[in-house]
Amino acid sequence: MTLDAADLTRLDRAHIIHPYLPGSATERVVMTSGSGCRLTDTEGRRYLDATGGLWLAQVGHGRTELADVAHEQMRKLEYFTSFWEFSNERAIELAARLAAIAPAPLNHVYFTSGGSEGNEAAIKMARYYHHRRGESSRTWILARSKAYHGIGYGGGSATGFPLYHEGFAPMMPHVSHLTPPWPYRCELYGDRHLSPGQVTDFLVRELEERIEEIGPENIAAMIGEPIMGVGGMLVPPADYWPRVRDVLDRHGILLILDEVVTAYGRVGEWFAAQYFGVTPDIIVTAKGITSGYVPLGALLVGDHVAEVLLRDHGFPMGYTYNGHPVATAVATANLDIIEQEGLLARATSLGAFLHGELEAQLGDLPIVGEIRSVGMMLAVELVQDRATRAPLPLNPDRMPHDVIRRDTGVIVRDSAHSLVLSPPLVMTEAEAKEAASALRSVLERTEPTGEIRAA
Amino acid sequence: MTLDAADLTRLDRAHIIHPYLPGSATERVVMTSGSGCRLTDTEGRRYLDATGGLWLAQVGHGRTELADVAHEQMRKLEYFTSFWEFSNERAIELAARLAAIAPAPLNHVYFTSGGSEGNEAAIKMARYYHHRRGESSRTWILARSKAYHGIGYGGGSATGFPLYHEGFAPMMPHVSHLTPPWPYRCELYGDRHLSPGQVTDFLVRELEERIEEIGPENIAAMIGEPIMGVGGMLVPPADYWPRVRDVLDRHGILLILDEVVTAYGRVGEWFAAQYFGVTPDIIVTAKGITSGYVPLGALLVGDHVAEVLLRDHGFPMGYTYNGHPVATAVATANLDIIEQEGLLARATSLGAFLHGELEAQLGDLPIVGEIRSVGMMLAVELVQDRATRAPLPLNPDRMPHDVIRRDTGVIVRDSAHSLVLSPPLVMTEAEAKEAASALRSVLERTEPTGEIRAA
Repeated sequence: MTLDAADLTRLDRAHIIHPYLPGSATERVVMTSGSGCRLTDTEGRRYLDATGGLWLAQVGHGRTELADVAHEQMRKLEYFTSFWEFSNERAIELAARLAAIAPAPLNHVYFTSGGSEGNEAAIKMARYYHHRRGESSRTWILARSKAYHGIGYGGGSATGFPLYHEGFAPMMPHVSHLTPPWPYRCELYGDRHLSPGQVTDFLVRELEERIEEIGPENIAAMIGEPIMGVGGMLVPPADYWPRVRDVLDRHGILLILDEVVTAYGRVGEWFAAQYFGVTPDIIVTAKGITSGYVPLGALLVGDHVAEVLLRDHGFPMGYTYNGHPVATAVATANLDIIEQEGLLARATSLGAFLHGELEAQLGDLPIVGEIRSVGMMLAVELVQDRATRAPLPLNPDRMPHDVIRRDTGVIVRDSAHSLVLSPPLVMTEAEAKEAASALRSVLERTEPTGEIRAA
Repeated sequence: MTLDAADLTRLDRAHIIHPYLPGSATERVVMTSGSGCRLTDTEGRRYLDATGGLWLAQVGHGRTELADVAHEQMRKLEYFTSFWEFSNERAIELAARLAAIAPAPLNHVYFTSGGSEGNEAAIKMARYYHHRRGESSRTWILARSKAYHGIGYGGGSATGFPLYHEGFAPMMPHVSHLTPPWPYRCELYGDRHLSPGQVTDFLVRELEERIEEIGPENIAAMIGEPIMGVGGMLVPPADYWPRVRDVLDRHGILLILDEVVTAYGRVGEWFAAQYFGVTPDIIVTAKGITSGYVPLGALLVGDHVAEVLLRDHGFPMGYTYNGHPVATAVATANLDIIEQEGLLARATSLGAFLHGELEAQLGDLPIVGEIRSVGMMLAVELVQDRATRAPLPLNPDRMPHDVIRRDTGVIVRDSAHSLVLSPPLVMTEAEAKEAASALRSVLERTEPTGEIRAA
C-alpha cells in the first residue's frame, strides 16, 4: 500500500480508537522512522523524542542490532508456550540475567507482555501468597492517590486518579489510597513548611493509622511506584521507602514496587529499589526491558514468595505470550547494550546535565515552580504563582506540550501540571540543550493565566 | 551463552515461575526451533504441534517472511506511542484491513498486546458506553460458567472456573454467570435427551430470567466465547448466538464476543461471528492476529459504540504498546499469508479431514464420549462410560496429554475432560493422521478408571 499523509490521516480517523483522543481531533502525527532520539513523520518533519516513546526507549530508536536479534530468533523459533513444563532458551537466559541484576533475594521471574498485565499478576500473587499460607483474610491492597498502575481492573483499581475509575466502576474492591509523597506540595500534609523528614513522618503516620483501621490481618500488600510517573515524576524523600518497608515488615504486608517506568537504567541503576536502598517482595517491570522493540514485561519475585507460589499445583495464571522467545531475546540484547554502553552511569550524568540545562534556561521563569529529577526522569512543575504555588491553569486546546511539539519539534508530555521528560539514555548533550531551549521558547511566552502568546 | 539441556533445566527451575507448574516438577521441554507444525527441543527431540503453541499458530512456525517483515520494520521504526494524536503507518494499514474483514458495522479498532488486556478493555468500553449515554447504572456483565476471558481482574472475574478466583478474590463485582451451551451435557439443562433447539430454549429462558432478576437497566453487556475454548471446545447449537443476540437487543445490552481463540481463520471464517451469523457490538481478538510472532491484540468495535467512546475527551485508557509498529506490520503480513494460502477454506477442509481421522481411529474406544469440531478447533471428550457419560477420572501425575507427548511426540492439551486440538492451519493430511494415531495409541491403553497401561 502506498498512502500519502492525507490518506493515512483519513484512514486513521475512520478506523483507530486512540487512547485519550476525541473523535473531533483532526490532527495526526504519523511517525515513519526513528534513529537515536530522532523521529520523522510522513510529512518529512523531524522530531526530538524527549519522552522516549512512552518513557521506555532506553537505548534509543532504530538500533539495528536489536532488529537483527529479533530476526534471527523469529526465523528459528518465533513462539511456543511457556506454560506448564514448556520453556525456551531465550526466556531462560533472560530470567537468569534478571535474577543477577535484581536486588539479592528476587531470584524468580514471571513473564508478561506489559506493565498492566504485570500489576494484575502482582496483586494476584500477593493475595495468593497469603491465601496459600492460611491467611486468606489478607486481601486489601494499599496504594496511593496519583498512582498509576495500569488499566487492568486490578492495577486500575490501585491507580489513584478519578479519571481511571469514572464510568468503569465497580472496580476491584479492597483497595485503599494513601497520600502520595510530593514534597513540593507540603499543603497535602497540612503545613507549607516541612523538611523531607517531616514529610515522611506524616506519610508513615498515615500508613500506620491506615493499617490500624483496616487491620493488618486483612492487608495483602502495598503497591507503589518508587517515583510516581503519571503523577508528575514525584520523587519521595530519601527515607520514605526504607521507613515504609519497616512498617510493612512489622505487619507482614508485602511490598510491590511498580518499576514499569523506573527500571532498567532510567534512574541510573538497574532498579529504583537499588537507588532508594529498599528491597521489595515483588518488582513489576516492562517498558525499558526491551526499550519497546517488542512488548514484554517481567515480575521479579522474592525467594520467599516464589516458594509459596510454587507449592501444590503452582501459580494458576498465565498470559499467552509468557516467555515469548523473540521478546526475551530482544530484552537480553537490550540489557547488553545498556551494560556495554554504560547507560546506567550515563543516565545519572546526562540526567544531571539536562537538569542543569533546565535550571539554567527555565529557572528564572515565574511559571516554573520546581524542576526535579532522578537520573533521566525529569519534571518541570508549572505554577500560576511561585509564592502560592497555585497550579498553572491549562487550556486543553492549547497545552504547553502541544505548542512545544508544534513550534519546536521537541516531544515532551504533561503529567498533571508538570511537563515530564524521559528521553532515551543515549541522548547527546546537544540534544539535551535543544530540549531545554524548546521548553524555554514556549514557557517564556506562557502567561500565569495559562495563555501562550504567539511566537 | 552456550548452555546444555541440563544447564537450561537447572536455570529454568531456579529462576522461572511457569504458569500452572509446581516447583516440584523436574521435567522441562525446552524448545529451540520450529517449522510448520514441527518443533525441536534442546535434546534434539522432534514434536508435532497439534495445539498451535497456545491455540494461535495459524500460519505455522518458522515463517521467514514474517521474520523479514519484523526485521525491516524494526530497523525503520520499532516503536512510538499511538496515544493521543500519534500514529504510525503499520497500525493504520492493519486497522483498515481489520475493518474490511470484520462484520459490517465493526469499523473501529482498539489495539492491545493480548487477549487478557482486550477483555479488560472490552468490559470498560461497555460500561463506559452506557455511562456516557447517561445509563450509569448499567454495570453488570453477563458471562457463563466454564468461560475463559483471561486473567486480568475484569476478564478474570467473567472467567467461569473456581480455579481462577480462589485466593485472588475479591474479584470485580457485578458479574453474573449463566449456564454454558454444551449439548453433550444435557443434564445441565435437567434432561438427558434434548434437541439442540431445546438446549437453546433452556439457555434463552435462563438468560431472560437472569436479565429480569438483575434488571436490564443494570446490565452493560454479555461476554462470551463463540466456541468455549478452555471449557473444552464447547460448540453451541446453531441458533444459540442469534437468539441470544435478539434477547440482548430487546434490552439494550451489548454483546462482546471474545474471539481470542476463534478469530483469524480458526473456524474457517475470519471471525466465528460470521460462522454463527451473529453481529456483536465488540469483538476481542489476539493470538491468531500475528500467529504469535509478536504479541498483539485488537478489539473491533461497532460504529455506534465507537461514536460514543470518541465523544468528549475520548476513551481514557491505553496500553503502552498500543498500535506497536512491528506487531501491526507482522499482523498484516500474517493476514496476507492466511489470504494468499487460502487458509480459511483450508481450516474447514482440513478440520473436516482431521475430524474424520479422529472418528476413524478413536470412534470405537469406550472412553471416547464425543468428538466435536468447528474448523480447526477439535475436542475429544473422555468418559468413564459412554452410557452414563460420566467423565473419565484423571490422574494429575499421568494425564493422557502428557503420556501422548512423552510416548509419541505429539502435543495436544487437556481442557477439563477433553483433549483439545488447535493445530496450525497449514497442517498436512499426513500430520493430521499422525496426530489421530498418536491419540489412539494412548487412549486405547486408557482404562475407564483413568489408568493408562504401559505401551
